[in-house]
Amino acid sequence: MTQTRRTRSWWGWGHVEDALSDEECAQLTDRVRALIPDADLTVHDPPDPHDITLPAPRIELPGPLAHLASDEHIDRLSHSHGKAFRDVVRALHGEFDSVPDQIVRPTTEQDVVDVLSWAGDAGVVVIPFGGGSSVVGGVEPRDRTGGAGVVSLDMSAMDRVLELDEVSRSARIQAGTFGPHLEDQLRPSGYTLRHFPQSFEFSTVGGWLATRAGGHYATGYTHIDDLTQSLRVVSPAGVSESRRLPGSGAGPSPDRMFLGSEGILGVITEAWLRVQPRPRWKATASVAFAEYDRGVDAVRELSQSGLAPSNCRLLDPVEAKINAGSTSSVLVLGFESTDHPVQPWMGRALEIARDHSGELTGPVTYTDSATTTGVDRSTGDAAQSWRSSFIRMPYQRDALAARGMIVETFETACTWSMFPALKAAVEAAAATAMEEVGVTGALSCRFTHVYPDGPAPYFGVYGAGEWGRTVEQWDHIKRAVSDALIAHGGTITHHHAVGRDHVPWYREQRPDLFAAALRAAKDALDPAGVLNPGVLLRERT
Amino acid sequence: MTQTRRTRSWWGWGHVEDALSDEECAQLTDRVRALIPDADLTVHDPPDPHDITLPAPRIELPGPLAHLASDEHIDRLSHSHGKAFRDVVRALHGEFDSVPDQIVRPTTEQDVVDVLSWAGDAGVVVIPFGGGSSVVGGVEPRDRTGGAGVVSLDMSAMDRVLELDEVSRSARIQAGTFGPHLEDQLRPSGYTLRHFPQSFEFSTVGGWLATRAGGHYATGYTHIDDLTQSLRVVSPAGVSESRRLPGSGAGPSPDRMFLGSEGILGVITEAWLRVQPRPRWKATASVAFAEYDRGVDAVRELSQSGLAPSNCRLLDPVEAKINAGSTSSVLVLGFESTDHPVQPWMGRALEIARDHSGELTGPVTYTDSATTTGVDRSTGDAAQSWRSSFIRMPYQRDALAARGMIVETFETACTWSMFPALKAAVEAAAATAMEEVGVTGALSCRFTHVYPDGPAPYFGVYGAGEWGRTVEQWDHIKRAVSDALIAHGGTITHHHAVGRDHVPWYREQRPDLFAAALRAAKDALDPAGVLNPGVLLRERT
Repeated sequence: MTQTRRTRSWWGWGHVEDALSDEECAQLTDRVRALIPDADLTVHDPPDPHDITLPAPRIELPGPLAHLASDEHIDRLSHSHGKAFRDVVRALHGEFDSVPDQIVRPTTEQDVVDVLSWAGDAGVVVIPFGGGSSVVGGVEPRDRTGGAGVVSLDMSAMDRVLELDEVSRSARIQAGTFGPHLEDQLRPSGYTLRHFPQSFEFSTVGGWLATRAGGHYATGYTHIDDLTQSLRVVSPAGVSESRRLPGSGAGPSPDRMFLGSEGILGVITEAWLRVQPRPRWKATASVAFAEYDRGVDAVRELSQSGLAPSNCRLLDPVEAKINAGSTSSVLVLGFESTDHPVQPWMGRALEIARDHSGELTGPVTYTDSATTTGVDRSTGDAAQSWRSSFIRMPYQRDALAARGMIVETFETACTWSMFPALKAAVEAAAATAMEEVGVTGALSCRFTHVYPDGPAPYFGVYGAGEWGRTVEQWDHIKRAVSDALIAHGGTITHHHAVGRDHVPWYREQRPDLFAAALRAAKDALDPAGVLNPGVLLRERT
Repeated sequence: MTQTRRTRSWWGWGHVEDALSDEECAQLTDRVRALIPDADLTVHDPPDPHDITLPAPRIELPGPLAHLASDEHIDRLSHSHGKAFRDVVRALHGEFDSVPDQIVRPTTEQDVVDVLSWAGDAGVVVIPFGGGSSVVGGVEPRDRTGGAGVVSLDMSAMDRVLELDEVSRSARIQAGTFGPHLEDQLRPSGYTLRHFPQSFEFSTVGGWLATRAGGHYATGYTHIDDLTQSLRVVSPAGVSESRRLPGSGAGPSPDRMFLGSEGILGVITEAWLRVQPRPRWKATASVAFAEYDRGVDAVRELSQSGLAPSNCRLLDPVEAKINAGSTSSVLVLGFESTDHPVQPWMGRALEIARDHSGELTGPVTYTDSATTTGVDRSTGDAAQSWRSSFIRMPYQRDALAARGMIVETFETACTWSMFPALKAAVEAAAATAMEEVGVTGALSCRFTHVYPDGPAPYFGVYGAGEWGRTVEQWDHIKRAVSDALIAHGGTITHHHAVGRDHVPWYREQRPDLFAAALRAAKDALDPAGVLNPGVLLRERT
């Protein structure tokens, strides 16, 4: 990674230096006008952050912990929201109703223990904070007034790869490690986690684990759950460390209780994760389907073939038009291996695509990093270019949000048999809801992950909103599509987590008895209710 | 499956009609004498079960449930133990210290609800019972005197495949369905679960789920956990049903809480499981390694290759000598697919084996069930023969147990880096412990499953014991090897479960905080402590 010092945006995604250039903005607004001719697109610049008034911090950390704490204005602002569309727009409006009183950056596990101990005694709420890239209100102290004060526990100072076990292909990694810094530390040994959520640059290992992040691979072992060998977690009740095991049948999995617990049971401080050598052989292809349904059938067969493509992302016609300049549905297909050339795999996959009337849109690319020159991370293959563009999407989102557009995504997973009705219902619900709030625009869909029993569809909303009302407009649309997801057999989230925003639908989805068990576990590990109240569980009255 | 009515053994494994023939017994004892020349091998026949005195049942089911209950002598005997070596030997000695008062066979979910409700009011303990094949004391009412009485809740009357969703490749299956009956119901549609634990014939879907059974595949998705789409569970606090989802990131997985809960949180009544079409293409090969360590290296590379062989079982020299008539280490290697011929996969796997000085012991067999005649379930390939012999092993165990031999297995999983020291420590502990109790014999090892980060080694003890003391002798050996497993980074069980026998080592292994959370969950779902006390958790005093 470049060593140039860059500045994190206090209101939007990523680095200030990486925001869209004027030229990129012009191209983007041209594309939007092609889709929505009457979009306003007046630019609304963010306020000067120092003009935003925040309530005085209600708490101070005790002496021994004071050096870890910050109540600087910008620090408090940038720990108030996640990075959803509604977070960015509220920041653009200077709306910060929910701010932490202090930001605390532990440097050791003992610091975490001490902060939780103090917070329990002081009646202070602690919100674990990784990269702050939550798009579901997971790090927002929304019910701030309830307690004596709120600490945002920023884990980013615990950012090292502590051990690498090459024989067992696993690495012990501190929770505050950001994606690029993780890969930087693994690269000299030739290893990689190959876990690239869209938030990769601005999210941490601990955040991935706490929210069950979805990763790079479109099939097979891709959720961070599958890459977890053991966890170390600090709860108010003590420290939990699971054994490093490749598999076990000894009781329910301890790790699976903490995976997805979103900071309500404990603070993940480190993990042994399954790493691998960097892949040597890659193949990529792009296949067009005149009929979307045939593309779905092809992807279903691929997901059930045992071929395990690393990329198998079907863009529906709207998504393909917006992001790939195509009028058909497009399947982005890829294979990679550290062990063997992947021609037989890609060959069979293309047979399946052709059986469903798919047509290659260009040459199939095969690369072998040992013999191909000029293949690097930025220019290696189409999948890599797609990923680069994918990584730029949040910056585009911010540029459009500042122009009064509603640009947001939501995602789910369902069985193959339920998918057609779910997609139709979501499209209908979105269209109705958009009309109800006067938003014209489009809804796109792609698959981020596919399983033998169903896909993980990822929807994008692009609509011309009314500046000043876009959060309210989006919230209306979001409620409608969430209702449709739950009514048609989906999950409220495949990899974005529940946070605070998804709680109403999560309550409909999870079994009541599981909620009772989770509440009981929470009370056992966090009896004072210090950790991230408002997430996952209904608060006790 | 044959429709011939067969009789379950009341004291040993499986069907009476499938016990070893006189000729097989003679062959087996010859093989034992070759290994242990001075083994006694006098046959000790089981007692007449009617000569065994049992205490009178302390309870009766109330009127509306009475028709589901049985207190017949043989029924109570056969629900008293699992099928571990120590269970079989105790039965041969007529030792039944722990018997249930009543066997109850629910036919509907409401029956399960009613039984749990009555039991909670009456202070009766309920032990969920699938096939009764536990080898860890999981179904034994060992602390029988503590309560008002004990019900063994035999789920075998709930044995149907209720729905098949071919598009999503999933089936809704009642928990009491035995392996063969499950496959019989799926076969007409061309589907299979392809989950073949060694207990396959005599264990149920619910048992597999409650104990996190390990399945057919040596790599990849093989634990029943991976095949689970959703669960329906009856707890004293109510009924829990999870959503059918191919993947989800909404909070910790509800299913993963019940998977491995061994009946302490609820009674699994049905599940949606991931099925697949019967495989068409198969390949099998057998590779010998003069040096065991090179074989381990080869298997490690295979496990990390992404090739995902369906069979990848390395037998150490002792195991190979006993079960494959070889003096080298032997790797049984297999691939299978419903989608494509598997030559490229097997070809690359054999390259890896050769790189580590492995030598094929015979031809590589490729079959295509669409073109090959005479390939059926019993004669199809070497892996199938191996599996047939594998399925006979418990019958051999019983024949030898009745001849004063100690024949038992234990299993674990650990990282690749820890494996050499773990194996050496287990071998040393077993040798010392066997000597301490005057047992001569051998310890064998094979891998049942392999992961990129480590193997699941499965050990077999074959020793000449002293009739009347073999349980005590085995318990001594078992304690020693279990201590070694835990001391060297293993799990006390990879797929046999914890039950009652493994509790001391499970306590050392699982994080204390997880135990506190599990106890809290248990108290929330089963406040009266009806369900399977003594398993997993320390009982409250």
